Amino acid sequence: MKPLDEVRLQRLLQGQRWGCLGTLDGGHPALSWVACALDGQGALLLHLSRLARHTRNLLVDGRVSLALTEPDDGRGDPQTLARISLDGVVEPLASDNEAYHAARQCYLAHLPDAEMLFGFKDFSLFKLTPQTARYVEGFGSSHRLAVEQLQRLLIP
Amino acid sequence: MKPLDEVRLQRLLQGQRWGCLGTLDGGHPALSWVACALDGQGALLLHLSRLARHTRNLLVDGRVSLALTEPDDGRGDPQTLARISLDGVVEPLASDNEAYHAARQCYLAHLPDAEMLFGFKDFSLFKLTPQTARYVEGFGSSHRLAVEQLQRLLIP
Repeated sequence: MKPLDEVRLQRLLQGQRWGCLGTLDGGHPALSWVACALDGQGALLLHLSRLARHTRNLLVDGRVSLALTEPDDGRGDPQTLARISLDGVVEPLASDNEAYHAARQCYLAHLPDAEMLFGFKDFSLFKLTPQTARYVEGFGSSHRLAVEQLQRLLIP
Repeated sequence: MKPLDEVRLQRLLQGQRWGCLGTLDGGHPALSWVACALDGQGALLLHLSRLARHTRNLLVDGRVSLALTEPDDGRGDPQTLARISLDGVVEPLASDNEAYHAARQCYLAHLPDAEMLFGFKDFSLFKLTPQTARYVEGFGSSHRLAVEQLQRLLIP
Protein backbone atom coordinates (compact mmCIF):
# COMPACT_ATOMS: atom_id res chain seq x y z
CA MET A 1 0.00 0.00 0.00
CA LYS A 2 1.35 3.44 -0.87
CA PRO A 3 2.19 5.82 1.99
CA LEU A 4 -0.56 8.25 2.88
CA ASP A 5 -0.56 11.76 1.45
CA GLU A 6 -0.20 13.93 4.55
CA VAL A 7 -0.94 17.14 2.64
CA ARG A 8 -4.25 15.74 1.44
CA LEU A 9 -5.12 14.41 4.90
CA GLN A 10 -4.27 17.71 6.56
CA ARG A 11 -6.40 19.56 4.00
CA LEU A 12 -9.29 17.24 4.89
CA LEU A 13 -8.85 17.74 8.64
CA GLN A 14 -8.38 21.49 8.45
CA GLY A 15 -10.77 22.27 5.62
CA GLN A 16 -13.92 20.42 6.58
CA ARG A 17 -16.42 21.88 9.05
CA TRP A 18 -19.36 19.46 8.78
CA GLY A 19 -19.02 15.92 10.03
CA CYS A 20 -21.01 12.94 11.13
CA LEU A 21 -20.96 12.25 14.86
CA GLY A 22 -21.59 8.76 16.17
CA THR A 23 -22.74 8.29 19.74
CA LEU A 24 -24.31 5.41 21.61
CA ASP A 25 -28.05 5.52 22.28
CA GLY A 26 -29.02 2.65 24.56
CA GLY A 27 -26.43 0.45 22.90
CA HIS A 28 -27.42 1.41 19.32
CA PRO A 29 -25.22 3.54 17.07
CA ALA A 30 -26.82 7.02 16.72
CA LEU A 31 -25.65 9.36 13.97
CA SER A 32 -26.10 13.08 13.53
CA TRP A 33 -24.46 15.93 11.63
CA VAL A 34 -22.46 18.48 13.55
CA ALA A 35 -20.27 21.46 12.80
CA CYS A 36 -16.66 21.11 13.96
CA ALA A 37 -13.40 23.02 14.09
CA LEU A 38 -9.84 22.21 15.13
CA ASP A 39 -8.77 23.75 18.44
CA GLY A 40 -5.17 24.26 17.25
CA GLN A 41 -3.87 21.93 19.96
CA GLY A 42 -4.66 18.51 18.55
CA ALA A 43 -8.34 18.24 19.45
CA LEU A 44 -11.64 19.21 17.80
CA LEU A 45 -14.32 21.56 19.02
CA LEU A 46 -18.04 20.86 18.77
CA HIS A 47 -20.69 23.40 19.75
CA LEU A 48 -23.67 21.39 20.87
CA SER A 49 -27.11 21.89 22.35
CA ARG A 50 -27.87 20.00 25.53
CA LEU A 51 -31.35 19.46 24.08
CA ALA A 52 -29.97 17.32 21.24
CA ARG A 53 -29.96 13.54 21.39
CA HIS A 54 -26.24 13.29 20.59
CA THR A 55 -25.39 15.56 23.53
CA ARG A 56 -27.53 13.55 25.93
CA ASN A 57 -25.88 10.39 24.62
CA LEU A 58 -22.30 11.61 24.94
CA LEU A 59 -22.88 12.94 28.44
CA VAL A 60 -23.79 9.34 29.38
CA ASP A 61 -20.95 7.74 27.39
CA GLY A 62 -18.26 10.02 25.98
CA ARG A 63 -16.81 7.47 23.53
CA VAL A 64 -17.67 8.88 20.12
CA SER A 65 -16.58 8.76 16.51
CA LEU A 66 -16.48 11.72 14.12
CA ALA A 67 -16.35 11.09 10.38
CA LEU A 68 -15.21 13.61 7.77
CA THR A 69 -15.07 13.27 4.00
CA GLU A 70 -13.98 15.25 1.00
CA PRO A 71 -17.26 16.46 -0.48
CA ASP A 72 -18.96 14.30 -3.11
CA ASP A 73 -19.82 16.39 -6.17
CA GLY A 74 -21.96 13.60 -7.58
CA ARG A 75 -19.57 12.86 -10.45
CA GLY A 76 -17.07 10.04 -10.85
CA ASP A 77 -16.50 7.35 -8.26
CA PRO A 78 -17.09 8.40 -4.63
CA GLN A 79 -14.77 5.58 -3.50
CA THR A 80 -11.88 7.79 -4.65
CA LEU A 81 -12.71 10.43 -1.99
CA ALA A 82 -10.42 10.78 1.02
CA ARG A 83 -12.25 10.31 4.33
CA ILE A 84 -11.47 9.77 7.96
CA SER A 85 -13.13 8.47 11.12
CA LEU A 86 -11.72 9.82 14.36
CA ASP A 87 -12.44 7.73 17.44
CA GLY A 88 -12.06 9.40 20.77
CA VAL A 89 -13.61 10.85 23.85
CA VAL A 90 -15.68 14.01 24.08
CA GLU A 91 -16.16 16.15 27.17
CA PRO A 92 -17.76 19.51 27.93
CA LEU A 93 -15.45 22.50 28.24
CA ALA A 94 -15.75 24.53 31.45
CA SER A 95 -17.12 27.88 30.31
CA ASP A 96 -15.78 30.24 32.93
CA ASN A 97 -12.15 30.61 31.94
CA GLU A 98 -9.65 31.95 29.39
CA ALA A 99 -9.35 28.58 27.64
CA TYR A 100 -13.06 28.64 26.79
CA HIS A 101 -12.74 32.13 25.34
CA ALA A 102 -9.79 31.02 23.18
CA ALA A 103 -11.70 27.91 22.03
CA ARG A 104 -14.70 30.07 21.14
CA GLN A 105 -12.51 32.35 19.01
CA CYS A 106 -10.97 29.33 17.31
CA TYR A 107 -14.41 27.83 16.58
CA LEU A 108 -15.83 31.11 15.25
CA ALA A 109 -12.81 31.70 13.00
CA HIS A 110 -13.82 28.46 11.22
CA LEU A 111 -17.62 28.86 11.58
CA PRO A 112 -18.42 32.58 11.81
CA ASP A 113 -22.16 32.06 11.31
CA ALA A 114 -22.35 30.18 14.62
CA GLU A 115 -21.89 33.35 16.66
CA MET A 116 -25.61 33.71 17.31
CA LEU A 117 -25.72 30.22 18.86
CA PHE A 118 -23.32 31.30 21.59
CA GLY A 119 -26.19 33.41 22.93
CA PHE A 120 -28.36 30.31 23.47
CA LYS A 121 -28.20 28.92 27.01
CA ASP A 122 -28.49 25.27 25.91
CA PHE A 123 -25.41 25.49 23.63
CA SER A 124 -21.85 25.05 24.81
CA LEU A 125 -18.48 23.91 23.52
CA PHE A 126 -17.25 20.34 23.79
CA LYS A 127 -13.76 19.03 23.15
CA LEU A 128 -13.22 15.83 21.17
CA THR A 129 -9.82 14.28 21.81
CA PRO A 130 -9.09 11.67 19.12
CA GLN A 131 -7.35 8.52 20.31
CA THR A 132 -7.11 6.72 17.00
CA ALA A 133 -8.31 7.20 13.45
CA ARG A 134 -8.94 5.25 10.28
CA TYR A 135 -8.03 7.23 7.14
CA VAL A 136 -9.08 5.98 3.72
CA GLU A 137 -7.43 7.87 0.88
CA GLY A 138 -9.39 6.16 -1.83
CA PHE A 139 -10.25 2.63 -2.82
CA GLY A 140 -7.90 0.10 -1.22
CA SER A 141 -5.80 2.69 0.62
CA SER A 142 -6.68 2.48 4.30
CA HIS A 143 -4.45 3.63 7.15
CA ARG A 144 -4.81 3.36 10.90
CA LEU A 145 -3.32 6.45 12.51
CA ALA A 146 -1.64 6.37 15.89
CA VAL A 147 -2.39 9.14 18.32
CA GLU A 148 1.02 10.88 17.91
CA GLN A 149 0.75 11.14 14.11
CA LEU A 150 -2.85 12.27 14.38
CA GLN A 151 -2.08 14.95 16.95
CA ARG A 152 0.65 16.35 14.73
CA LEU A 153 -1.67 16.48 11.71
CA LEU A 154 -4.42 18.16 13.73
CA ILE A 155 -2.18 21.08 14.63
CA PRO A 156 -2.10 23.60 11.75
CA MET B 1 -42.43 23.83 14.06
CA LYS B 2 -43.17 24.14 10.35
CA PRO B 3 -44.14 20.97 8.48
CA LEU B 4 -41.28 19.27 6.69
CA ASP B 5 -40.64 19.93 3.00
CA GLU B 6 -41.17 16.50 1.43
CA VAL B 7 -39.76 17.59 -1.93
CA ARG B 8 -36.51 18.65 -0.30
CA LEU B 9 -36.35 15.46 1.76
CA GLN B 10 -37.03 13.26 -1.25
CA ARG B 11 -34.32 15.09 -3.19
CA LEU B 12 -31.90 14.36 -0.34
CA LEU B 13 -32.82 10.66 -0.19
CA GLN B 14 -32.81 10.13 -3.93
CA GLY B 15 -29.95 12.42 -4.86
CA GLN B 16 -27.21 11.48 -2.42
CA ARG B 17 -24.95 8.48 -2.99
CA TRP B 18 -22.33 8.88 -0.25
CA GLY B 19 -23.32 8.45 3.38
CA CYS B 20 -21.89 7.76 6.79
CA LEU B 21 -22.59 4.28 8.15
CA GLY B 22 -22.62 3.67 11.88
CA THR B 23 -22.09 0.16 13.20
CA LEU B 24 -21.19 -1.25 16.57
CA ASP B 25 -17.61 -2.41 17.17
CA GLY B 26 -17.35 -4.12 20.52
CA GLY B 27 -19.91 -1.72 21.95
CA HIS B 28 -18.26 1.42 20.50
CA PRO B 29 -19.81 3.44 17.66
CA ALA B 30 -17.78 2.84 14.47
CA LEU B 31 -18.22 5.18 11.50
CA SER B 32 -17.25 4.76 7.87
CA TRP B 33 -18.21 6.23 4.51
CA VAL B 34 -20.16 4.07 2.09
CA ALA B 35 -21.82 4.44 -1.28
CA CYS B 36 -25.56 3.83 -1.27
CA ALA B 37 -28.55 3.72 -3.59
CA LEU B 38 -32.30 3.32 -3.15
CA ASP B 39 -33.66 -0.08 -4.17
CA GLY B 40 -36.95 1.40 -5.44
CA GLN B 41 -38.90 -0.58 -2.86
CA GLY B 42 -38.36 1.40 0.30
CA ALA B 43 -34.92 0.15 1.29
CA LEU B 44 -31.32 1.12 0.54
CA LEU B 45 -28.58 -0.88 -1.10
CA LEU B 46 -24.98 -0.96 0.09
CA HIS B 47 -22.22 -2.76 -1.78
CA LEU B 48 -19.70 -3.79 0.84
CA SER B 49 -16.50 -5.76 1.14
CA ARG B 50 -16.46 -8.54 3.72
CA LEU B 51 -12.91 -7.45 4.49
CA ALA B 52 -14.11 -4.08 5.81
CA ARG B 53 -14.59 -3.44 9.51
CA HIS B 54 -18.16 -2.13 9.03
CA THR B 55 -19.15 -5.36 7.27
CA ARG B 56 -17.67 -7.56 9.98
CA ASN B 57 -19.48 -5.42 12.55
CA LEU B 58 -22.89 -5.53 10.89
CA LEU B 59 -22.69 -9.28 10.35
CA VAL B 60 -22.40 -9.56 14.15
CA ASP B 61 -25.08 -6.94 14.90
CA GLY B 62 -27.23 -5.71 12.01
CA ARG B 63 -28.58 -2.62 13.80
CA VAL B 64 -27.05 0.29 11.92
CA SER B 65 -27.58 3.95 11.18
CA LEU B 66 -26.95 5.66 7.85
CA ALA B 67 -26.58 9.44 7.74
CA LEU B 68 -26.98 11.59 4.62
CA THR B 69 -26.59 15.34 4.22
CA GLU B 70 -26.96 17.97 1.57
CA PRO B 71 -23.37 18.74 0.60
CA ASP B 72 -21.57 21.53 2.45
CA ASP B 73 -20.01 23.95 -0.02
CA GLY B 74 -18.03 25.63 2.76
CA ARG B 75 -20.03 28.87 2.54
CA GLY B 76 -22.77 30.18 4.83
CA ASP B 77 -24.06 28.29 7.85
CA PRO B 78 -23.90 24.46 7.61
CA GLN B 79 -26.69 24.26 10.21
CA THR B 80 -29.08 25.26 7.40
CA LEU B 81 -28.35 22.03 5.48
CA ALA B 82 -31.00 19.33 5.37
CA ARG B 83 -29.77 16.00 6.72
CA ILE B 84 -31.17 12.67 7.83
CA SER B 85 -30.18 9.68 9.92
CA LEU B 86 -31.88 6.43 9.01
CA ASP B 87 -31.90 3.79 11.73
CA GLY B 88 -32.58 0.24 10.68
CA VAL B 89 -31.35 -3.24 10.08
CA VAL B 90 -28.97 -4.38 7.37
CA GLU B 91 -28.69 -7.87 5.97
CA PRO B 92 -26.81 -9.53 3.10
CA LEU B 93 -28.75 -10.17 -0.11
CA ALA B 94 -28.68 -13.71 -1.40
CA SER B 95 -26.74 -13.48 -4.67
CA ASP B 96 -28.14 -16.38 -6.67
CA ASN B 97 -31.52 -15.04 -7.76
CA GLU B 98 -33.42 -12.54 -9.92
CA ALA B 99 -33.86 -10.10 -7.04
CA TYR B 100 -30.09 -9.75 -6.69
CA HIS B 101 -29.75 -9.03 -10.40
CA ALA B 102 -32.46 -6.35 -10.18
CA ALA B 103 -30.81 -4.82 -7.10
CA ARG B 104 -27.45 -4.78 -8.89
CA GLN B 105 -28.99 -2.91 -11.83
CA CYS B 106 -30.61 -0.44 -9.47
CA TYR B 107 -27.33 0.17 -7.64
CA LEU B 108 -25.32 0.60 -10.85
CA ALA B 109 -27.86 3.03 -12.30
CA HIS B 110 -27.01 5.29 -9.35
CA LEU B 111 -23.30 4.39 -9.09
CA PRO B 112 -22.08 3.30 -12.54
CA ASP B 113 -18.39 3.44 -11.55
CA ALA B 114 -18.95 0.59 -9.07
CA GLU B 115 -19.32 -1.99 -11.84
CA MET B 116 -15.72 -3.15 -11.49
CA LEU B 117 -16.28 -3.93 -7.79
CA PHE B 118 -18.93 -6.52 -8.70
CA GLY B 119 -16.06 -8.62 -10.05
CA PHE B 120 -14.41 -8.76 -6.62
CA LYS B 121 -15.28 -11.88 -4.62
CA ASP B 122 -15.28 -10.09 -1.24
CA PHE B 123 -17.92 -7.55 -2.34
CA SER B 124 -21.63 -8.15 -2.24
CA LEU B 125 -24.89 -6.26 -1.90
CA PHE B 126 -26.58 -5.62 1.43
CA LYS B 127 -30.06 -4.28 2.05
CA LEU B 128 -30.69 -1.64 4.69
CA THR B 129 -34.32 -1.51 5.80
CA PRO B 130 -34.94 1.73 7.72
CA GLN B 131 -37.23 1.45 10.73
CA THR B 132 -37.19 5.06 11.83
CA ALA B 133 -35.42 8.27 10.88
CA ARG B 134 -34.56 11.68 12.26
CA TYR B 135 -34.74 14.42 9.61
CA VAL B 136 -33.33 17.87 10.32
CA GLU B 137 -34.29 20.44 7.71
CA GLY B 138 -32.15 23.17 9.16
CA PHE B 139 -31.60 24.79 12.51
CA GLY B 140 -34.45 24.04 14.92
CA SER B 141 -36.48 21.97 12.44
CA SER B 142 -36.20 18.33 13.48
CA HIS B 143 -38.68 15.61 12.56
CA ARG B 144 -38.93 11.98 13.58
CA LEU B 145 -40.27 9.95 10.66
CA ALA B 146 -42.42 6.90 11.13
CA VAL B 147 -41.72 3.86 9.01
CA GLU B 148 -44.78 4.32 6.74
CA GLN B 149 -43.91 7.92 5.80
CA LEU B 150 -40.28 6.98 5.31
CA GLN B 151 -41.09 4.01 3.08
CA ARG B 152 -43.26 6.22 0.89
CA LEU B 153 -40.50 8.83 0.54
CA LEU B 154 -37.91 6.19 -0.29
CA ILE B 155 -39.88 4.98 -3.28
CA PRO B 156 -39.22 7.25 -6.29
